[in-house]
Amino acid sequence: MTARVAPSGKSATYVALSGGIGGAKLSLGLARLLGERLTVIVNTGDDFEHLGLAISPDIDTTLYTLAGVANPETGWGRRDETWRFMEAIAELGGPTWFKLGDRDLATHVERTRRLKAGEPLTAVTLHLAERLGVSARVLPMSDEPVRTVVETDAGALAFQDYFVREQCRPAVRALSYEGAAAARVSAEVKARLSASTLGGIIVCPSNPWLSIAPILAVPGLREALKARAVSVIAVTPIIGGKAVKGPTAKIMTELGLSPDVASIARHYGALLDALVVDTLDARTVTDLPVPTSIANTIMHTEDDKVALARHCLALCERLAVRS
Amino acid sequence: MTARVAPSGKSATYVALSGGIGGAKLSLGLARLLGERLTVIVNTGDDFEHLGLAISPDIDTTLYTLAGVANPETGWGRRDETWRFMEAIAELGGPTWFKLGDRDLATHVERTRRLKAGEPLTAVTLHLAERLGVSARVLPMSDEPVRTVVETDAGALAFQDYFVREQCRPAVRALSYEGAAAARVSAEVKARLSASTLGGIIVCPSNPWLSIAPILAVPGLREALKARAVSVIAVTPIIGGKAVKGPTAKIMTELGLSPDVASIARHYGALLDALVVDTLDARTVTDLPVPTSIANTIMHTEDDKVALARHCLALCERLAVRS
Repeated sequence: MTARVAPSGKSATYVALSGGIGGAKLSLGLARLLGERLTVIVNTGDDFEHLGLAISPDIDTTLYTLAGVANPETGWGRRDETWRFMEAIAELGGPTWFKLGDRDLATHVERTRRLKAGEPLTAVTLHLAERLGVSARVLPMSDEPVRTVVETDAGALAFQDYFVREQCRPAVRALSYEGAAAARVSAEVKARLSASTLGGIIVCPSNPWLSIAPILAVPGLREALKARAVSVIAVTPIIGGKAVKGPTAKIMTELGLSPDVASIARHYGALLDALVVDTLDARTVTDLPVPTSIANTIMHTEDDKVALARHCLALCERLAVRS
Repeated sequence: MTARVAPSGKSATYVALSGGIGGAKLSLGLARLLGERLTVIVNTGDDFEHLGLAISPDIDTTLYTLAGVANPETGWGRRDETWRFMEAIAELGGPTWFKLGDRDLATHVERTRRLKAGEPLTAVTLHLAERLGVSARVLPMSDEPVRTVVETDAGALAFQDYFVREQCRPAVRALSYEGAAAARVSAEVKARLSASTLGGIIVCPSNPWLSIAPILAVPGLREALKARAVSVIAVTPIIGGKAVKGPTAKIMTELGLSPDVASIARHYGALLDALVVDTLDARTVTDLPVPTSIANTIMHTEDDKVALARHCLALCERLAVRS
């Protein structure tokens, strides 16, 4: 391992890898501490076209959460939302399985308009972030389309078909990330990962298979993490054998893995310098292939999010000093 | 002129040619009397793409009016509309000059989705009409795109740029209908115009240059009217030297025409068997090149619309008997 002279304190920048809800919670905590020194690289494997609109669910959840306009009940969409468009689409016989609020819809329409005009997804996302008053840099993992395909006992399903339409009911056999081989790391992502100010990389408590794996499938991204001159840590998405939200534990079982922290540690393996584990699991995490750090990882309140973020940043700093 | 044995009474079908607001009012009156025996052939020269959506303003005004969901104040859009999408688009820095209500938006999104899936505009329009409970047949003038271009003292303007963005301020020098030469009469329009049940063709009191001329520019449509075996009548859009709504009188003056009924009569000329003129103009309409029929053509209430429609149908029947 190369000698680390990572920046620390007020000058350091950080990169988070994130999917939707759980990742966005930690990103919010990090954003409160870091402001524009935070870059969130977001999964776009869930992106899809619906009603002719380019929809990026994880980017939107991240933007809305950081902007303080996310719907706290659903984990997706905007707060104080209305549904007049959806009512009218139902009246006209259009598809209604994917819910689009009246305000949320503007994000998809404006994104689609800009993509069609030739703007890369990165530029569109930076524009939306600016308009929503988000100071952290939110970046799609790539400007090229990558589509997560879920191989299930009911056949191969596009991600949203599996996740929303089928509500994760079919058993997962395998996952693939269509388009990943042809995708490239964008100049913006590359710059943030190779910045001399970089203090650490934090893998958020998102689903490792559905949300983080697509990011790492973009050629160059896994390598960038492996070749790092800074510490890489992850926060476990599994607490006491369960996922806080979503199908992580179910999918792990279906993939033949025990839904526990040890499986997460083995999954990420040498990619990590440390895994942040919940206090609930403190006594069970012996003999893991990765060093652990114990923290409260359940984020109900904004204070919880900031506290976990502070723990992560301190861990990165400590790892940098130690090495 | 060929001998006319036009159907009458309860078996006759009628075709109306119409633009937006004024035309939709008479169409509503005709629909109340005729139900599914009415076909409205609607101008699509105003159609445009906005925010990636295929928007057909005159078709929508016609559908909403016949469905009883039109906004009576604006003449466009739906009643009881909300504007959350528009607020959010403004927040995101998107274009706001063309107003799209939350419910109205569903029409454009669903139309765009179906067009992209390969449905012709005629099929999409028939679908929307059915979902909105409209029994009259509302048909676009063609499935091929025709775009009205307004040559003005401020340069050539796409129709919506002239009409909405510039609010008809530039002086009109000429009009052209891009794509018209390559457009075709659809099978549905052809069938309705050549139906053995056809009792008459009614040109609605829409702007002759902006709304009716694009329809007649579709190769075969003007010819179909000329070759008719039934009477063709028009309702004047000019009353007492003024247009009820919109820029008709202004445009006539800019085109070097006196904004009066005589100019309308000369404009349509041999295309018509009769021109319905308002009672206000009864004393001034001498020596016109077209026979006239006097009626109250100002349609404030639904009763006004039905009364004018009844007058038009009676006139068609009378002309058929007379010839």
